[in-house]
Amino acid sequence: MKLSKFFLPILKDIPSDAKIKSHQLMLRAGMIRQSASGIYSWLPLGFKVLKKIEIIIREEQDRAGAQEMLMPTIQSADLWKESGRYDGYGLEMLRIKDRQDRELLYGPTNEELVTQIFRDNVKSYKSLPLILYHIQWKFRDEIRPRFGIMRCREFLMKDSYSFDETKEGARLSYNKMFYAYLKTFERLGLKAIPLAADTGPIGGDLSHEFIILADTGESQIYTSKKILDLKIENFSNDEDNLNNMVKAFTEIYSATDEKFDQSEFDKSVKKEDQLITRGIEVGHIFYFGDKYSKSMRALVNSSSGQNITVEMGSYGIGVSRLVGAIIEVNYNNNVMKWPTTVTPFHVAIIDLGKKSENETKIKSQNVYEKLKENYFDVLLDDTDESPASKFKNFDLIGIPYQIIIGSKQKVDEYEFKEVGFDKQIVSLDFIIKKLKEIYFN
Amino acid sequence: MKLSKFFLPILKDIPSDAKIKSHQLMLRAGMIRQSASGIYSWLPLGFKVLKKIEIIIREEQDRAGAQEMLMPTIQSADLWKESGRYDGYGLEMLRIKDRQDRELLYGPTNEELVTQIFRDNVKSYKSLPLILYHIQWKFRDEIRPRFGIMRCREFLMKDSYSFDETKEGARLSYNKMFYAYLKTFERLGLKAIPLAADTGPIGGDLSHEFIILADTGESQIYTSKKILDLKIENFSNDEDNLNNMVKAFTEIYSATDEKFDQSEFDKSVKKEDQLITRGIEVGHIFYFGDKYSKSMRALVNSSSGQNITVEMGSYGIGVSRLVGAIIEVNYNNNVMKWPTTVTPFHVAIIDLGKKSENETKIKSQNVYEKLKENYFDVLLDDTDESPASKFKNFDLIGIPYQIIIGSKQKVDEYEFKEVGFDKQIVSLDFIIKKLKEIYFN
Repeated sequence: MKLSKFFLPILKDIPSDAKIKSHQLMLRAGMIRQSASGIYSWLPLGFKVLKKIEIIIREEQDRAGAQEMLMPTIQSADLWKESGRYDGYGLEMLRIKDRQDRELLYGPTNEELVTQIFRDNVKSYKSLPLILYHIQWKFRDEIRPRFGIMRCREFLMKDSYSFDETKEGARLSYNKMFYAYLKTFERLGLKAIPLAADTGPIGGDLSHEFIILADTGESQIYTSKKILDLKIENFSNDEDNLNNMVKAFTEIYSATDEKFDQSEFDKSVKKEDQLITRGIEVGHIFYFGDKYSKSMRALVNSSSGQNITVEMGSYGIGVSRLVGAIIEVNYNNNVMKWPTTVTPFHVAIIDLGKKSENETKIKSQNVYEKLKENYFDVLLDDTDESPASKFKNFDLIGIPYQIIIGSKQKVDEYEFKEVGFDKQIVSLDFIIKKLKEIYFN
Repeated sequence: MKLSKFFLPILKDIPSDAKIKSHQLMLRAGMIRQSASGIYSWLPLGFKVLKKIEIIIREEQDRAGAQEMLMPTIQSADLWKESGRYDGYGLEMLRIKDRQDRELLYGPTNEELVTQIFRDNVKSYKSLPLILYHIQWKFRDEIRPRFGIMRCREFLMKDSYSFDETKEGARLSYNKMFYAYLKTFERLGLKAIPLAADTGPIGGDLSHEFIILADTGESQIYTSKKILDLKIENFSNDEDNLNNMVKAFTEIYSATDEKFDQSEFDKSVKKEDQLITRGIEVGHIFYFGDKYSKSMRALVNSSSGQNITVEMGSYGIGVSRLVGAIIEVNYNNNVMKWPTTVTPFHVAIIDLGKKSENETKIKSQNVYEKLKENYFDVLLDDTDESPASKFKNFDLIGIPYQIIIGSKQKVDEYEFKEVGFDKQIVSLDFIIKKLKEIYFN
């Protein structure tokens, strides 16, 4: 893509209503624009990152054996009356009447709808275990939307739902999702820690939130430095080991300020290991047994021939919110650097030649073609802006690798730079080899 | 994927409320389930097809130079008051009030919102031409939803919007989309014909609908057999040739019954060439000049230094509707056969062995592993159903190639069948070579 053609409306100044850095960056780098209060349009740069996050989430869900489907955004109120949540959900639920005066709502979550689909279509334990998921827009009518896409009204969520015959089966499904979540966040370059959590309006017996450590996070987090040494890549996902993995991650004391208990903290974590930091919630998983299957009569014929209510859990990841979380972690000192797994482009080419200088234009174009031939997604800055302005723009765009083409370089020399490191003068072959290692290992 | 684990609730009988064959098939093959009147959930099989169609549409949009973004489903009513369409749109628009009593709506289309984004972010002709698109769920509150996803309320649409400095530029953008549409439908295995159309509530001077020829279509079509000989693959998409391509496709008389004129038909098409058939609308493109840019004041600084209203067009494809259209064309005599470009699985393995027969189970499993190693997406029927029932199910699932494993075959022999053709007894290597040619050419 050539920057002169790319719809990337960069803002020179920080919009006054953007209080946190992800909101500032997303507006300035032309990733999003607000379309109504708490409702955003994703412009091409933001959309590219959102899609890449979505793909990683999908891959890890599929790997965990979850099956993708897609439920609609608009639901019938009747279902929520069946489960008993319609009245209790309050003003955050966007309630709608259609032309026939039927009560509808914009789904804030999908326990009811997926339970309906399950009960209408699954009759026997032989179809279990089953994990279904979808990646769909949700709406919650926040009273005071703020912080850009971090606390907005229309947001993209991945929500999975597990169905099992037994409590043990449900626990295994829970553990599989626990693993998939840690894997997902690791691939996004984030350090996520699971915290025992309240179940809130979803209900249930067991719940964990996943919190990304970030200085600018919304919640205070109390934990041990030891949790930073735990890496999901060191755990296998075979069923027998999942319990040990969950145990390893959850036996370390971790709490948000809501649940924090100083004496317990001091008892569980040595003074020198205590880590008090901030975090951003990006996922939440629940085991809630028969809460919905009972009220909505989702029964299956069990292996012992009885009709039993199915054991369920639900598992959410804030897909659009993750874009903000990744920025909060990776946008420092006014310089953004995307993790290689979600960067909107693999590499930037910055042509520093003046308008009249055809030489750098040709050289830039050649590099551009060569990289495209090698399947890289490249953004070439072919605009007439000044070098200073170009570098400032790329500080916002955040592509982690840059090739800088200036008029003083030798023909076969290229300035190659990883954001945050010193530039190197190298050959184009070296650059291609390096980028292949990074992106296509 | 193994069928025993796949969430595929097949119905033995035709649901009584399903009047057309795509609706019948999608319910019976477990592709969709109705969640509320005119609102459907896409189960895994249906979702896979929907995604494949989406990818082909995306590729052809990108190739045409359109840039993908994503606008939200919920819009502010204020925008529609600005353009003047709020009152006129009628009861099909789903109107919503939020907790602050602000007027919102579920977008039925996006001319207003994209014009707002354009006017806020583009100031100069230098950023033109620009084509933006998104693939997003829309809602139209049909008074009588019917025919499954063919005439439903929540539906997936690809909508593109072009912005140009001049009328000639706008015409070029229009032609590029015209080409991209014919390419898209060709890749979906559909014969699409463009028809001059009324502009309806979108407005404008120039408009074509794209109609898929299908005996069961909703509209009567009058055209010439000669249009069947026109193939988009025989036209290049360089800018100079686009006009000739559009001319070739549009100079042949084609009309729906609404616009049909017998004497014109007889005058333009020789008796022996006259083709009277039925069709399904799957796309609609519009050039409407400054209809929105004027009312909403989307101005740019032109190349001659004046402030001018930008020239616009919009271009829609019914993504979810295409699933139905493809079925209407390819589901005949109770047998479905997906085009290879959108089939939910590349190939089916049908194990005909009885429960006790371990031999066919091992053979099927081996073939399954071998095909997966070769990157094929395979559905293995490992259930205990009878052979007759298995074949009936696969008539609904519609995977175009089948490998049938029976107990009477020799160890290194495999029954390979393309749906609609005779089976062959061949080696596994032959099958893999054949499938590679078909899917990965």
